[in-house]
Amino acid sequence: MLLQPIVNLVEILSRKGVNDAIISPGSRNAPLTIALVRHPDIKTLSISDERSAAFIAMGMAQNLKKPVTICCTSGSAAYNYAPAVAEAFFQEIPLIILTADRPKEWIHQHDGQTIYQTDIFGKHVKQSFEIGADYSHPDAIWHIERTVNNAVNLANTFPKGPVHINIPLREPFYPAENEQIRFDNDVRVIERLDTENTLSKEVWATLLQSIEQYDRVLIAGGQNEYNPALTAVLQKLQDEFNFPILGDAIANLKFDVISNHDIFLNQETDNLRPELLITFGKSFISKSFKTFLRKNKAIEHWHLSLDNHLIDTFQSLTKVIPVQPQYFFEKLLEDIDFAQFKNGDDEERDGFYLDEWKKNNFKAKSYLEHFFLADFHQKQLNEFYAIKKLLDAIPANSQLHLANSMSVRYANYIGTAPEKQIEIFANRGTSGIDGCVSTALGAALSTDKLVYLLIGDLAFFYDRNALWNRYIPDNLRIILINNHGGGIFRMIDGPSKQAELADYFETVQSYTAEKTALEADLDYFNAKTVDEFHALSTAFLDHNGKAKIFEIETNSVYNTEIFKQFKAGFSA
Amino acid sequence: MLLQPIVNLVEILSRKGVNDAIISPGSRNAPLTIALVRHPDIKTLSISDERSAAFIAMGMAQNLKKPVTICCTSGSAAYNYAPAVAEAFFQEIPLIILTADRPKEWIHQHDGQTIYQTDIFGKHVKQSFEIGADYSHPDAIWHIERTVNNAVNLANTFPKGPVHINIPLREPFYPAENEQIRFDNDVRVIERLDTENTLSKEVWATLLQSIEQYDRVLIAGGQNEYNPALTAVLQKLQDEFNFPILGDAIANLKFDVISNHDIFLNQETDNLRPELLITFGKSFISKSFKTFLRKNKAIEHWHLSLDNHLIDTFQSLTKVIPVQPQYFFEKLLEDIDFAQFKNGDDEERDGFYLDEWKKNNFKAKSYLEHFFLADFHQKQLNEFYAIKKLLDAIPANSQLHLANSMSVRYANYIGTAPEKQIEIFANRGTSGIDGCVSTALGAALSTDKLVYLLIGDLAFFYDRNALWNRYIPDNLRIILINNHGGGIFRMIDGPSKQAELADYFETVQSYTAEKTALEADLDYFNAKTVDEFHALSTAFLDHNGKAKIFEIETNSVYNTEIFKQFKAGFSA
Repeated sequence: MLLQPIVNLVEILSRKGVNDAIISPGSRNAPLTIALVRHPDIKTLSISDERSAAFIAMGMAQNLKKPVTICCTSGSAAYNYAPAVAEAFFQEIPLIILTADRPKEWIHQHDGQTIYQTDIFGKHVKQSFEIGADYSHPDAIWHIERTVNNAVNLANTFPKGPVHINIPLREPFYPAENEQIRFDNDVRVIERLDTENTLSKEVWATLLQSIEQYDRVLIAGGQNEYNPALTAVLQKLQDEFNFPILGDAIANLKFDVISNHDIFLNQETDNLRPELLITFGKSFISKSFKTFLRKNKAIEHWHLSLDNHLIDTFQSLTKVIPVQPQYFFEKLLEDIDFAQFKNGDDEERDGFYLDEWKKNNFKAKSYLEHFFLADFHQKQLNEFYAIKKLLDAIPANSQLHLANSMSVRYANYIGTAPEKQIEIFANRGTSGIDGCVSTALGAALSTDKLVYLLIGDLAFFYDRNALWNRYIPDNLRIILINNHGGGIFRMIDGPSKQAELADYFETVQSYTAEKTALEADLDYFNAKTVDEFHALSTAFLDHNGKAKIFEIETNSVYNTEIFKQFKAGFSA
Repeated sequence: MLLQPIVNLVEILSRKGVNDAIISPGSRNAPLTIALVRHPDIKTLSISDERSAAFIAMGMAQNLKKPVTICCTSGSAAYNYAPAVAEAFFQEIPLIILTADRPKEWIHQHDGQTIYQTDIFGKHVKQSFEIGADYSHPDAIWHIERTVNNAVNLANTFPKGPVHINIPLREPFYPAENEQIRFDNDVRVIERLDTENTLSKEVWATLLQSIEQYDRVLIAGGQNEYNPALTAVLQKLQDEFNFPILGDAIANLKFDVISNHDIFLNQETDNLRPELLITFGKSFISKSFKTFLRKNKAIEHWHLSLDNHLIDTFQSLTKVIPVQPQYFFEKLLEDIDFAQFKNGDDEERDGFYLDEWKKNNFKAKSYLEHFFLADFHQKQLNEFYAIKKLLDAIPANSQLHLANSMSVRYANYIGTAPEKQIEIFANRGTSGIDGCVSTALGAALSTDKLVYLLIGDLAFFYDRNALWNRYIPDNLRIILINNHGGGIFRMIDGPSKQAELADYFETVQSYTAEKTALEADLDYFNAKTVDEFHALSTAFLDHNGKAKIFEIETNSVYNTEIFKQFKAGFSA
């Protein structure tokens, strides 16, 4: 008979809104598998490679904005989850990790699939719980039901993140044939209420005073999910009150923010230094921006974050303000608006600082657009051009996943038109190339939108097991920039001058995705020339049909030339 | 300029005999990469997928019988090593794990490729060292040189295993163009002398007395590397002194040991209970053997092991004897021999207990051989038959790697002829399917012998990135048993009766290896029928030519029928 507390654990997950689970096959986790699959309100998928399974779950959780369960057998299976768990932790994406285990007494006894699973994810989970192997004592049952409540509550509390429950199980693992599972109506569901962190009148007054005292206030957003309400208030702060708002592509600020800073920030732009810097969100892609701010430190730097970690990306932090950015900026808008109304228009914030940023941004944007009009792009296909054309063409309301390494960097130069409201994602928690395809697949499985993935060949083949399953949805679109190696190493000065470049940094590899596409039954397009690229783009961009890969094969040396030309050609 | 202490670290590795390194591309680890690649006495390979890289290193270290270095960049890269690190830990294979890291001050600062790397492998390394980011203070240099000595010494000390050094590095990572690296002749090499654990005369006398007091003494070997001297002494103990010696396929005891126990041990064989059980080596494959011994507990159970963990696989342990098995058995042989010489032949150990085991083993072996003579094997191809034929045919002095799940179980029933001295390996430390191809590849890269891998489809595709590199040697031979899912789940009673069998346990998958073979440039053979199988076997078994895959596609339902028939047909 299936252990009732395990059935209850699954019932509690469902009651608490965790209705999706990715299961990897195994025997030790069979009781969990059976309870998850048979639960009427839980949708399950079976993914063999645990590394991919966990990234798929993360991609789903990101779209669903709630935890997804991953469930695996005992032994090294759990360790294959670790890369995705670390990414989810730093990207603050909720996951419920259920690892089946052998009971404690079997650890390190030379008896299969048993490793040290307690706390196996180290500091990369919000908490690691462990239940006993006893499923009968009333206190044990109390512990299990309490633990799963605790885990889901914790995963959902800001900053969200992965939570682990290690679950030792003894044989037998399987219910009798045709045994009915009883999902108990009587399980304990313990709610943890959402709260809002707010600022007292007094505290707010001092903040407002500071803001009004500075002429050069820069607001900058790091990685953030698309939030229309936040976008709206920030847009007003920029348009009506002259605060420059800056955001990388992954900040998802869908209006005309300063977004070409990667192009124009350099040694000549120290004059843009802010007096007060207000930041929110997670990491920034732009190295130019980080270098600029670390050199030109703000007098005050406030970071809006509910995270207890003191994160001082720009080495200038003076205040942590643990509130939601939307709350803060709405309050700011309201009070500044009121102050202006009270004082009449004369007191309006001077626009000179915003103008300086806008002037630079406009120039950079124009440079970018002009760059791609040059004739040479029509002669030999280069990846930068191909990415520009495709990012310009992907339809409104799509999602765009950017793989790490060059993909995310190229895309941050190019951006997407804000009015198309394309949500942009990237695994910038740990910036690994290890799960980019799986993450995009997970996203595609949890939305009706088209999901585009921009990815280089190393990241693509590294994670090609993402496509080794029966669930590839029609809305997945992969733009594969294949320069047969890690092109980024040729772009940066250090490695490009070493004898080891091709073999140990770029890691030249010969694969194309043709066979992978065939195996996984995706439509496949391959372009090596400008003509092929233009001819095939239309078919690839067709909204209809099944999942597609557009592989763009270019020469790494030539790509480097083009990119260096692009970087060298801009003058502020 | 490249940091001299990093160059020295590499020089010390080489001086201490660690002359092989698998590097995964990255920027943070560039100083290590460059020093490793340029060292005249270190052989380096570049493998992009860190999960595969670490298993390849493990396969190499197993053959080389000394540590192999793995080296990766910062961030989630290190976590991809973890499955292989856990396997190496439990299988006691030495590895030197060099993870580049960002300096401490950059952890959790929303700035790329930075996770909590300190102690990242938990209890699955013998020790985790960490050096500082300071490479200039004399004490820091002393610490680095001491640490690498300590790490290699520790990896090489019984029980051997993986040792981790976390290495924080600041920019710049790259030497100037054409900069010469100076491998210092003056580095500190600190030797740790090998010792032998021996037993005092008094202790040995009491042991010998116990042995002589029991009539039913069973010697059983768990997983062990092939050791001709140990084999020779055990053979004499069995042949001349009537001790039954039992070993699974992975015990590598290359003489006529009791090896068909998986077939004949059952409820009817309680009479084989030993009074004294002497074990050595690591894990046992045979579940029948474990069940038999846990039920029929020996009065005394001695386990020969240098490991400080108290490992009580059969729940009967009474004495841990921390000496090398070869020392123990040579001493036993010598003293028993002398005692007999002194007493005359009358006192010879009675052979009845050995005979009981031998009788059963002979019967089981005959049953096995007869089973495969049946006509039905010629009608429809089944995997058990195909494996039998191929294991019988693989040439003497090859190596055989057994993937986990059904492959290792089938092979343990069938075995290989001892006189062929085929060394047998399997990842039975954690029994995961996650790195079986990579491990075999690592083995093939470090021996001139032919290396056969017997593997099922789930394990094969899980780890197909093993073949995504430029190093596939000609001596690799893959026998791929493709039943399009995890056949093991159909074989065992529990899952085979569940509605979730195909989707969530067996995990039906449609891939064949044809495209993988093409991409990786291996010869490829595919058999679906008995005729095809026989026709292609010869070509596959050809010693010459390049690496080959022989894919045997069979029906999972039919395989299960055959295997059940095999299991049911034997009567003791």
